[in-house]
Amino acid sequence: MSIQKALQRDNGKGRLRPAMLAIAGDSAAGKTTLTKGLVEALGHDLSTSICTDHYHRYDRQERKEKPFTPLHPDCNYVEIMEQHLQLIAMGQPILQPIYNHHDGTLGRPVLVEPEDYVIIEGLIPIHSRLARACFDITVYLDPPEPLRYSWKIKRDTTKRGYTEEQVRAELDKREPESAEFIRPQRAHADIVVQFAPIEERGESLNDPLSATLLLRPTAPHPDLASVLTDDTREAIHLKLSRDEDGKPVDAVHIHAYADPGVTQKVKEAIWESLGVDEPFPASLGQVEPGVVSEPLALSQLLLLYHLIQARQK
Amino acid sequence: MSIQKALQRDNGKGRLRPAMLAIAGDSAAGKTTLTKGLVEALGHDLSTSICTDHYHRYDRQERKEKPFTPLHPDCNYVEIMEQHLQLIAMGQPILQPIYNHHDGTLGRPVLVEPEDYVIIEGLIPIHSRLARACFDITVYLDPPEPLRYSWKIKRDTTKRGYTEEQVRAELDKREPESAEFIRPQRAHADIVVQFAPIEERGESLNDPLSATLLLRPTAPHPDLASVLTDDTREAIHLKLSRDEDGKPVDAVHIHAYADPGVTQKVKEAIWESLGVDEPFPASLGQVEPGVVSEPLALSQLLLLYHLIQARQK
Repeated sequence: MSIQKALQRDNGKGRLRPAMLAIAGDSAAGKTTLTKGLVEALGHDLSTSICTDHYHRYDRQERKEKPFTPLHPDCNYVEIMEQHLQLIAMGQPILQPIYNHHDGTLGRPVLVEPEDYVIIEGLIPIHSRLARACFDITVYLDPPEPLRYSWKIKRDTTKRGYTEEQVRAELDKREPESAEFIRPQRAHADIVVQFAPIEERGESLNDPLSATLLLRPTAPHPDLASVLTDDTREAIHLKLSRDEDGKPVDAVHIHAYADPGVTQKVKEAIWESLGVDEPFPASLGQVEPGVVSEPLALSQLLLLYHLIQARQK
Repeated sequence: MSIQKALQRDNGKGRLRPAMLAIAGDSAAGKTTLTKGLVEALGHDLSTSICTDHYHRYDRQERKEKPFTPLHPDCNYVEIMEQHLQLIAMGQPILQPIYNHHDGTLGRPVLVEPEDYVIIEGLIPIHSRLARACFDITVYLDPPEPLRYSWKIKRDTTKRGYTEEQVRAELDKREPESAEFIRPQRAHADIVVQFAPIEERGESLNDPLSATLLLRPTAPHPDLASVLTDDTREAIHLKLSRDEDGKPVDAVHIHAYADPGVTQKVKEAIWESLGVDEPFPASLGQVEPGVVSEPLALSQLLLLYHLIQARQK
């Protein structure tokens, strides 16, 4: 069976329900990078990605008069976002609002018809229960704050026309709302992805990043215990652990300097367990042109696994 | 019971379903004038009016490249319009697209939350079965074409910046699509409203307009037979008739020069039959500031009757 055939098999049911993935996380947490590789792997024809930042209720000018930042639910059409997520999850089209990041204006909406695989990324896609109910799999991106700050400063000064001082002031202003509305979503994610240096190994923020994936028992993850052996241990290993809230969780550590030969075997084993008869997708792990991250590749692969599995159900 | 109380009575059911009226008709058929008096009578707080022309898929510039006019369903987001009508009918909010008539651009959408009474007017609000199913009562405005042409020329040259030649050329271009998509809606309306001179009485297009209302047995109209007597006959009368398709219909004729004392009695009798304990709404019948039409007032009253009745069910 191929990615495409997962679709064909269901065709008798009439209008198809897409597989739905949510990628939640604070500004510049890496949502776009994660999404991009997934869309490449699934194919643009079979996938739809939507950023929930388009559901801003006010444009940049209007927000100046408001007592909150774009992170606040009151600054967004949350009820409409929930409605559109429900429609998309049922395979229905929506007329999606448009927020233009380059000039901060709200523009002409666009028709979005969901393809087989839908990726919804944004600041608050799993903030509410009704929204969460629309997804087959939910992810929270949780880099250490110093790393996220450096990513945000780099992006907003190069792509959105802000100075570093402006970005830092904005981050300070947003912090209380990050704490109140963004970070609580972590507790509702099936997978928490943390790209971070592993201090015990002497890694710093400037090195290629290792990753820890926390896999909560709220989703049918692949059987990693049988895939990860003593041979793969240096590159990637699984550990029964306690999350910061004390609850049990499977933690998968993928080391930045993992031997690609070893991680490739792990990835192929996960891919084969899906029973998809296509070659392993080559697009995974691209951080920027020419830079590939094995931890990113494995994170994306796990999400692909869940998306394809959701269509096979 | 008051208009307001019709709401309160239903409150136990949770989110309320509004009473839904569709006003369909070709460009400049009088939809806005009809709507305006209804909104005044119901109160702006209790009513929501939406024009379906906002669901244009292309802006004015883009339409120049297209082989159809705004009347064509392919020129509109018909599926989204149906979706929004369904949501509104269930009492849900929508993010409504915006078409700017003054410059022909598509703009930033607006949040619309349905009040108790919803009036949907436009070119094709009852074109499809799914759309029609959303309404408690449907109306088609059917003025004679020469009259509609004169209204359209007057409006588009004074308010939309066109010359008379441009409007006439546009009307010619639209005629095939009017025939194919707009006029067939007449057959699906519970009420057909024809403002027109009554030729047998020697009335012309320049006189105040008489009106004929065709009441199809598809809606629970008020019992006019008991209200209209020999005393009211000169002003307004009811006649069992055949529609242009040969099917039986009740035709109510209201004469332009009807004695307001007589029509007032008729209107009050209809109003009283609703059991609403508010005075008869004074806003009905206004064509433009200072110009009142008894036939328009009676048409609006009949629609009010259906809207209020729908909320009482």
